[in-house]
Amino acid sequence: MSGRHFLFVPGPTNVPDRVLRAMHRAQEDHRSSAFPALPRSIFPDLKKVFGSIAGQAFIFPATGSAMWEASLVNSLSPGDRVLACRNGQFSHLFIDCAQRLGMRVDVIDVEWGEAVPPTQIGEALAADPAHEIKAVLVVHNETATGVTSDMAALRAAMDAARHPALLLVDGVSAVGSLAFRFDEWKVDFAIAGSQKGFMMPAGLGLLCVSAKGLAMSAAAQCPRAFFDIRDQAKHNADGYFPYTPALAHLFGLREALDMLLEEGLDNVAARHRRLGEGVRLAVAAWGLQLCAKDASSVSNTVSAVVVPEGADSRRVIDIAFRRYNLSLGAGLGRLAGKVFRIGHVGDLNELMILGALSGVEMALRDAGIPVMLGSGVAAAQQWYRSCAPPLR
Amino acid sequence: MSGRHFLFVPGPTNVPDRVLRAMHRAQEDHRSSAFPALPRSIFPDLKKVFGSIAGQAFIFPATGSAMWEASLVNSLSPGDRVLACRNGQFSHLFIDCAQRLGMRVDVIDVEWGEAVPPTQIGEALAADPAHEIKAVLVVHNETATGVTSDMAALRAAMDAARHPALLLVDGVSAVGSLAFRFDEWKVDFAIAGSQKGFMMPAGLGLLCVSAKGLAMSAAAQCPRAFFDIRDQAKHNADGYFPYTPALAHLFGLREALDMLLEEGLDNVAARHRRLGEGVRLAVAAWGLQLCAKDASSVSNTVSAVVVPEGADSRRVIDIAFRRYNLSLGAGLGRLAGKVFRIGHVGDLNELMILGALSGVEMALRDAGIPVMLGSGVAAAQQWYRSCAPPLR
Amino acid sequence: MSGRHFLFVPGPTNVPDRVLRAMHRAQEDHRSSAFPALPRSIFPDLKKVFGSIAGQAFIFPATGSAMWEASLVNSLSPGDRVLACRNGQFSHLFIDCAQRLGMRVDVIDVEWGEAVPPTQIGEALAADPAHEIKAVLVVHNETATGVTSDMAALRAAMDAARHPALLLVDGVSAVGSLAFRFDEWKVDFAIAGSQKGFMMPAGLGLLCVSAKGLAMSAAAQCPRAFFDIRDQAKHNADGYFPYTPALAHLFGLREALDMLLEEGLDNVAARHRRLGEGVRLAVAAWGLQLCAKDASSVSNTVSAVVVPEGADSRRVIDIAFRRYNLSLGAGLGRLAGKVFRIGHVGDLNELMILGALSGVEMALRDAGIPVMLGSGVAAAQQWYRSCAPPLR
Amino acid sequence: MSGRHFLFVPGPTNVPDRVLRAMHRAQEDHRSSAFPALPRSIFPDLKKVFGSIAGQAFIFPATGSAMWEASLVNSLSPGDRVLACRNGQFSHLFIDCAQRLGMRVDVIDVEWGEAVPPTQIGEALAADPAHEIKAVLVVHNETATGVTSDMAALRAAMDAARHPALLLVDGVSAVGSLAFRFDEWKVDFAIAGSQKGFMMPAGLGLLCVSAKGLAMSAAAQCPRAFFDIRDQAKHNADGYFPYTPALAHLFGLREALDMLLEEGLDNVAARHRRLGEGVRLAVAAWGLQLCAKDASSVSNTVSAVVVPEGADSRRVIDIAFRRYNLSLGAGLGRLAGKVFRIGHVGDLNELMILGALSGVEMALRDAGIPVMLGSGVAAAQQWYRSCAPPLR
Repeated sequence: MSGRHFLFVPGPTNVPDRVLRAMHRAQEDHRSSAFPALPRSIFPDLKKVFGSIAGQAFIFPATGSAMWEASLVNSLSPGDRVLACRNGQFSHLFIDCAQRLGMRVDVIDVEWGEAVPPTQIGEALAADPAHEIKAVLVVHNETATGVTSDMAALRAAMDAARHPALLLVDGVSAVGSLAFRFDEWKVDFAIAGSQKGFMMPAGLGLLCVSAKGLAMSAAAQCPRAFFDIRDQAKHNADGYFPYTPALAHLFGLREALDMLLEEGLDNVAARHRRLGEGVRLAVAAWGLQLCAKDASSVSNTVSAVVVPEGADSRRVIDIAFRRYNLSLGAGLGRLAGKVFRIGHVGDLNELMILGALSGVEMALRDAGIPVMLGSGVAAAQQWYRSCAPPLR
Repeated sequence: MSGRHFLFVPGPTNVPDRVLRAMHRAQEDHRSSAFPALPRSIFPDLKKVFGSIAGQAFIFPATGSAMWEASLVNSLSPGDRVLACRNGQFSHLFIDCAQRLGMRVDVIDVEWGEAVPPTQIGEALAADPAHEIKAVLVVHNETATGVTSDMAALRAAMDAARHPALLLVDGVSAVGSLAFRFDEWKVDFAIAGSQKGFMMPAGLGLLCVSAKGLAMSAAAQCPRAFFDIRDQAKHNADGYFPYTPALAHLFGLREALDMLLEEGLDNVAARHRRLGEGVRLAVAAWGLQLCAKDASSVSNTVSAVVVPEGADSRRVIDIAFRRYNLSLGAGLGRLAGKVFRIGHVGDLNELMILGALSGVEMALRDAGIPVMLGSGVAAAQQWYRSCAPPLR
Repeated sequence: MSGRHFLFVPGPTNVPDRVLRAMHRAQEDHRSSAFPALPRSIFPDLKKVFGSIAGQAFIFPATGSAMWEASLVNSLSPGDRVLACRNGQFSHLFIDCAQRLGMRVDVIDVEWGEAVPPTQIGEALAADPAHEIKAVLVVHNETATGVTSDMAALRAAMDAARHPALLLVDGVSAVGSLAFRFDEWKVDFAIAGSQKGFMMPAGLGLLCVSAKGLAMSAAAQCPRAFFDIRDQAKHNADGYFPYTPALAHLFGLREALDMLLEEGLDNVAARHRRLGEGVRLAVAAWGLQLCAKDASSVSNTVSAVVVPEGADSRRVIDIAFRRYNLSLGAGLGRLAGKVFRIGHVGDLNELMILGALSGVEMALRDAGIPVMLGSGVAAAQQWYRSCAPPLR
Repeated sequence: MSGRHFLFVPGPTNVPDRVLRAMHRAQEDHRSSAFPALPRSIFPDLKKVFGSIAGQAFIFPATGSAMWEASLVNSLSPGDRVLACRNGQFSHLFIDCAQRLGMRVDVIDVEWGEAVPPTQIGEALAADPAHEIKAVLVVHNETATGVTSDMAALRAAMDAARHPALLLVDGVSAVGSLAFRFDEWKVDFAIAGSQKGFMMPAGLGLLCVSAKGLAMSAAAQCPRAFFDIRDQAKHNADGYFPYTPALAHLFGLREALDMLLEEGLDNVAARHRRLGEGVRLAVAAWGLQLCAKDASSVSNTVSAVVVPEGADSRRVIDIAFRRYNLSLGAGLGRLAGKVFRIGHVGDLNELMILGALSGVEMALRDAGIPVMLGSGVAAAQQWYRSCAPPLR
């Protein structure tokens, strides 16, 4: 296959050459006297990306999904009751993880494509005057449906209910690409992974924990070893880790943080908004619908596109992959066959998106879905022209 | 710092350029139709390195130490009684992990520097006619003391006791460098990590599980999510993983397996034996003692060297690092200050070892320990000359 | 700048990750007994790319343009008369090089955008019964105008004139991407560089020389040292070079040759034809003209596009670079301001081209040139769909 | 072959990982508006390494040896008389290059192993009152013999003779590792390559030219094209090059310059002196002689070691390569079989040297040359201990 593959799944994302180069390094003794300089430079910057000054960040040699478990076992005990919203495959799996670990989960099911409903969460908490509910579990950006929920509104609803439940937020496809305000939203455990907005290979689970969350870890009764943040905290205090860290990934994370902060987190979010809007304009030009029900909650990192009744999105994806060197995301769980997903998260620019949209158009046509070639591209082009740096 | 740092801790080890290059690649869709070819090529070769045909291998985006937990939660239930031998810091931590997860551990403590005593294990099992003991936990190669235990003898003792306990073996600093015979020794869970004999950065936990071990996972009552091998087995069957795999590490593992199999596993073990013997001859020439009590159980991947009474090994290590660009391993736990460790595991050759031994000699002298400069080097040289390819 | 820059100049071209990785290696002793294996594997494969079995290939640590000089000084003497066709900037520079080295050049000037005229060359040779003309100098693919000349027809014309002049062909933007038939066309010196079809960084000058050409080197009176192919031939015979070779580039060349031969040279040429046709269809859809006058000589590696009267192509190029992360080639020499060039040579695929065409469309519109957004993309898409692997 | 090869030829040298990473980058348009920033940052720093503020530096996509030709053709005319000293293979080749290009060379032959004799040069110039001699050609550091000549003394002798001849200095194995004082020594053309002190792969020829040298280029009658510094100067003035530069090497050069200047040029020279002295002490401990006749002119970048009468140095080199993964330099020209050379130039440290010396000791013994194992290592260790950073 000549040329560069177009990787447009919503993770893993394209790893910038700068990050790949940074990871291409000799290993070091992770117990040397010189080693702590690296983690000590990383943690404060990592917290910035979570939008936190007050919290504490943790880095696990694991995956984003592993952080579901890390957040649960460090804050809860078997048998604890938690409240969760299921609005897509990843919130479903977060709930499944909690259940496997012995929690009783009150599930608020909404249609896949809808956002987390702050009002319903608030009502459920208000209906728990005994404060049996220990935590609220939500996914900030549902990667399966392309829906971003309003965390500020959720926090407001929780506050209005005067309920002390912890707030556990899966930010895997949000942190590092969308604005994330850990402190402002009073999140207790925020979950991220290296392979999306952080523009790295999978292999790091990232966690940000509030003071309240940290305090819970002492009382939490879930058995745990690898995921125990108390061990992490103890070793991190001296600039070390409780076990051999994934050093290549730490090198990469250092570089990825540099890139994010050089661009500026607000600019990163604005770029994702700009690029995502182009994709949405293309989808509209094709006459297709997003899985996201509400324009106010469309995701700037992933668009789940519904194929017309009778069509199978798997065929579009297969054609794109085999004929056009383009990877698209599949519909997950109950959306299988019904949507394909265009990831637009991480290290991307306009021409990469336009190339991908060109490929989607061809694959749609090949699959018998009548879109006009060039139509989506033109819609996105018009938008991108209007956003480009000024002519001079 | 000019030139190449001499990394002689017993892990992380030197990552060969071939492996670093293999990891320096664009990411891919881990759910594409083309993806399964990679894991399907890896698993059979990975099993070869464990010495297994009958077992099943698993790859976690985690660390070697995480595999302690993976082996325990997939085979046991809280409250289960297990038997373990503590002969160094890593067996200590394995035991600690089991205790954290709720197991009751019968500990056989031996002096640090001694091997796992098959007779005592056999006796303990024989004293358990009710078969309450569900598993035996041992470390094949104690990285803290430089001691390799005799797994064949251990298995013989277990068989003689006619006890059905599972055998869980930590092979982190053994698999991929020392001969490991999973099937022959009837190991049930063997534990490894990417950053030692596999010559990769840390970030992969590797597990090999027997049919008996797999069967136990259904009954095991430990709550688990990330570490559940049933999810792995289900997805692996189709060439996929239950969550985003650490793809860069899979690329690296593919290359590392190629290197190990190209060299030949027997040759790899022979090289470690040859290189390790040179180090031991140097230690003897310096007039120093190994921590290992018995010549028959000296490790070919790491030598723990005892400093003379009154000296502090931390000073030797500090001098080596700051003055000579050489990383040595520290004494761990109760050995802190008493030993320094020379790792000789992974991608090494004679001149690298001789350079490191030169550095150790200088650091010892600088620390006031009276060794003759060049003496250890000369002893190792003489040995390496005798092992070198034939003159012609 | 986020994402990947779109490099669409006609050289340097995109270096595939495989080649970059192959170059990322430790250096070696170029005089060791093991070294000759590398050049010995390269030379025969390199000749295949030139389309030669009978010739001899040379590799200089230099550039493609340096091979003008290498071909001239090894075959001619100061004062020698040569015949050359000037149909673009690179043929102009080839002529200039010959003049600087003391040759008398009979120049056949044709309009820039036209191919080398075999008839005129044949007539000029026929008008030289004394065979004063020692060599014919032409550029196979004029990178400045996007014109590929017919070398078979040229050879036929030379043969018809029964003239013994050497044939020196600049194939810098042709070899490795267009079909090149050194033996069949009876070329005497063919000139190439590493940074176009060979998909490498600049830094290697590549030469293929006929037996007749080699024989001329003994009589050639041009003073020379670095470029003397007799030194090269002498050292190459043993697998060595007369001076330190550009080793990283040799590693890269080995990999690039593997890639070319794995794809198949015919397939490489077909891919360039397919991709180039898409670009030309886009240009036509925009209502713009190519610099190439004749459809039969359009280049499959570069398209020079004429901007409308009154527009300045430099503005298009500047906008593409600053606003859209896209590098286009400038008009050179007398074409400055009048054309921009889209390189479509080397490691490319359909979506990369479509992304670039999207960028060109936006830049044209921004520069006030009235093209319909998406129109060129759609024309290329339609063509690429028809060429894609079969649906199934 | 496991582990890292010990590359101890005097070039190519070890390329630091930082430089390899810097070269592992996407190519760019060398004619873009952004491109000039790179060369503009490089040239001033490159001049610093030559020890010049007043001169002008040039970068050719070629080799160090190509710069012999570049220096000659840009300053002289065919038939010009030049004076040269031959004290080793590289000065021999410099002379050969001048002769091939048509110069008449007055050769001062001294024994190989001796330095350039300032007095004889001065006398020869004094004996040329008509100033027929247009240039003096010398090699600063004779890589073949391990001899560094005194350029300040040479300049003093030339000044004393009040002779206007240009001074052309081959600094290939000196610049970037030994102190080089272009301005102070009033050098007119200084010649370097990328693959020694600059710690890069071969592929760049580097030149520093005085104002007087630049002025000569207009009058110089040697035919030239590729090597014409007037083209370079014209394009460099705007931050460009006359033909496609070896971009990967420019990226590498930028990083290598950063490394040299971060370490500090004085520290670089001091490190080479320190490392070289260790090698010499080892040679003395072995009871062997250097090729260099005079202790005051021993080279800090390469040691040519004479094997005892009756021994063949080629056998030592072959054994080192095949049995110990160590590359040593061969005796060149008339020194073939009589010396082997240990390169100690570029990115090296003490333990790397000690590893290499260990290998030399083993190879010498294997070849039947009676040295005591460990003896050279111990001598070097003692010295390196005395030079190491202070204990604390």
